[in-house]
Amino acid sequence: MANNNFNPWEIKGDIDYTKIIKQFGLKPFDKLLPKLNDYLLFRRGLIYCHRDFERIEKAIKNKKQFAMMTGLMPSGKFHFGHKMVADQTIMYQKLGAKVYVAVADIEAYNSRNPDVDKLRKDAIEEYLTNYVALGLDLKKCDFYFQSDRSKDGKKAGAYYSLANMLGRHTTFNQVKAIYGDISPAKLSSALLQASDMLHPQLKEFEGKPLPVIVPVGVDQDPHLRLTRDVAHKYPGYDFVPISSTCHVFLPGLKGGKMSSSDENSFIALTDSPEIAAKKIKKFAFSGGRETLEAHRKYGGNPDVDVSFLLLKFGLEEDDDKLKEIYDAYKEGRLLSGELKKYTIEKLENFLVEHQKNRIKAKKEVKKFLAKL
Amino acid sequence: MANNNFNPWEIKGDIDYTKIIKQFGLKPFDKLLPKLNDYLLFRRGLIYCHRDFERIEKAIKNKKQFAMMTGLMPSGKFHFGHKMVADQTIMYQKLGAKVYVAVADIEAYNSRNPDVDKLRKDAIEEYLTNYVALGLDLKKCDFYFQSDRSKDGKKAGAYYSLANMLGRHTTFNQVKAIYGDISPAKLSSALLQASDMLHPQLKEFEGKPLPVIVPVGVDQDPHLRLTRDVAHKYPGYDFVPISSTCHVFLPGLKGGKMSSSDENSFIALTDSPEIAAKKIKKFAFSGGRETLEAHRKYGGNPDVDVSFLLLKFGLEEDDDKLKEIYDAYKEGRLLSGELKKYTIEKLENFLVEHQKNRIKAKKEVKKFLAKL
Repeated sequence: MANNNFNPWEIKGDIDYTKIIKQFGLKPFDKLLPKLNDYLLFRRGLIYCHRDFERIEKAIKNKKQFAMMTGLMPSGKFHFGHKMVADQTIMYQKLGAKVYVAVADIEAYNSRNPDVDKLRKDAIEEYLTNYVALGLDLKKCDFYFQSDRSKDGKKAGAYYSLANMLGRHTTFNQVKAIYGDISPAKLSSALLQASDMLHPQLKEFEGKPLPVIVPVGVDQDPHLRLTRDVAHKYPGYDFVPISSTCHVFLPGLKGGKMSSSDENSFIALTDSPEIAAKKIKKFAFSGGRETLEAHRKYGGNPDVDVSFLLLKFGLEEDDDKLKEIYDAYKEGRLLSGELKKYTIEKLENFLVEHQKNRIKAKKEVKKFLAKL
Repeated sequence: MANNNFNPWEIKGDIDYTKIIKQFGLKPFDKLLPKLNDYLLFRRGLIYCHRDFERIEKAIKNKKQFAMMTGLMPSGKFHFGHKMVADQTIMYQKLGAKVYVAVADIEAYNSRNPDVDKLRKDAIEEYLTNYVALGLDLKKCDFYFQSDRSKDGKKAGAYYSLANMLGRHTTFNQVKAIYGDISPAKLSSALLQASDMLHPQLKEFEGKPLPVIVPVGVDQDPHLRLTRDVAHKYPGYDFVPISSTCHVFLPGLKGGKMSSSDENSFIALTDSPEIAAKKIKKFAFSGGRETLEAHRKYGGNPDVDVSFLLLKFGLEEDDDKLKEIYDAYKEGRLLSGELKKYTIEKLENFLVEHQKNRIKAKKEVKKFLAKL
């Protein structure tokens, strides 16, 4: 069933995560493979539900071949919302996955009509470079543009043909049920996304059907449903159904959504520490009370406080410290200004370190692209 | 406007050619480039209308670069209906065109769901081999499968991406107006066909925008209308609008349509002369009268007589002789049996010669495919 609040190209209003889990047939995590608790996104419940994730855990546990696929649609600067996907990509790479990263430039063209050259530039300078600076190993990664899949024509043919042939196994009623009313362009994009997710299993790529994990925000979940359904009906190949997880969205600085067109709605990973500090001070939505007295008396709300959420989503790696902050804030012992100060410090340290890493990353990316 | 009688995947009932010319904005030929009258399909009016054909005539006249594109959807044996397209392909090659031949295997999959391997086999053994035996020069031809465009990944990317990006420039209303109600699979196919027709102009192929002629039967004309429209709206490239012609269909042996599933509805180019003769004798729809007396008195109707039409579509190359037969039949001087006998003789000669050429063609095709 299509959700009225969002589809892969638009999010309107608030998302009721509990409702979505039911509506889309997702499952909350039961017991996680202990190894996964090394990763804060899992242990803090920020990755909160899944489909067929058992298959991925089994592959990790038994050191069997599996792949991870993610797509990125570059739109301006790479920010902490994007970082969450990069973190997961790097996590799965460390856990043994062959990583596929698609630049969804055709989807961007079909759904947003940007300048194709600008998009390519952003994909490389913002997205890929930051991925590498965050720890992506390009040697174990198949990074590609949807518009330019491969130097190898056989591979390109296999990838694109699959997209074209999957259409046979869907109907407009089904498409409408999943996405709501969409244009021919978005239908094309959806089928190409299905190929993005499925093609690692082809003989031209990993050589055989194998588990593939696609971590998404819930807005992208419709693509998973379509892909799983067409893969199941496709007679030409015995695809392993795609596994997926959903993660919680990091809200924008002011609360609500981050928006590429509003630089004050996010912290970019290329923001200078000064700019970042200013943005937190001036814009970061606070869960604190209106007056110092009220805060001391009733306590703040860390669950909606963007400074706290930035810590929770990764800036604070120490769970005990995070809990300490959570409790202190909730009990009014820690003030909004103090929390912001702590977050700013963590953020500045992160940005300085990251931007140092970017210098090295740029060189690696340049070398990588020369061979692409 | 969608025509109720046909779309690219189905033909129902009779086709009113005059009505179609008006409905689809086609133009009858006015004055042909004299050179084209060397070709019987033109001078006999079997290619009867066009869009922007002046551009192709100009290219031929001025020896400028142009391309010809055709698609084939193999379904069983290669027959005299298919030959008409092969004849035009070879004609344009002789006139200087770079020829593109697409095996529409993805379209076949999406609209007919055949066995992909069988389809590939037919495309090579039936279609390509017969094209070569009829005179196609493989050295001046880009023959490809939609599912496997190119050894060169850059080329493959350019071809497939174009198909995926063209969708942006159409709407479901437009698609419905052109094709009637179609499935997601047929929409995918239509966009891929648009890329088939347009991609010769890309920098990865002929290197620059150039005239392209796509000769079709009128059932395929919807693809031309969609392609011209999306090309016009596509901002990324300055495509020359596709030129097209429409040809009259050669009817099936029994009148009506040829059908791949009824071997007696056509003469295959691999039929033995004996089988072919039998088919003409037994099945070829005759325009003759019911009795010898009536035929002598009132004359026959060569325009619906399949034996005569086989001569007109190419078995009789001599226009004077054809006219002599036409008149004699119409005036009752030539009987159905005599006409059939004459056609059988011509047909047997053609098949013997053609099947000799096929032996050589097979070797050429084998060599060509090894390099593909």
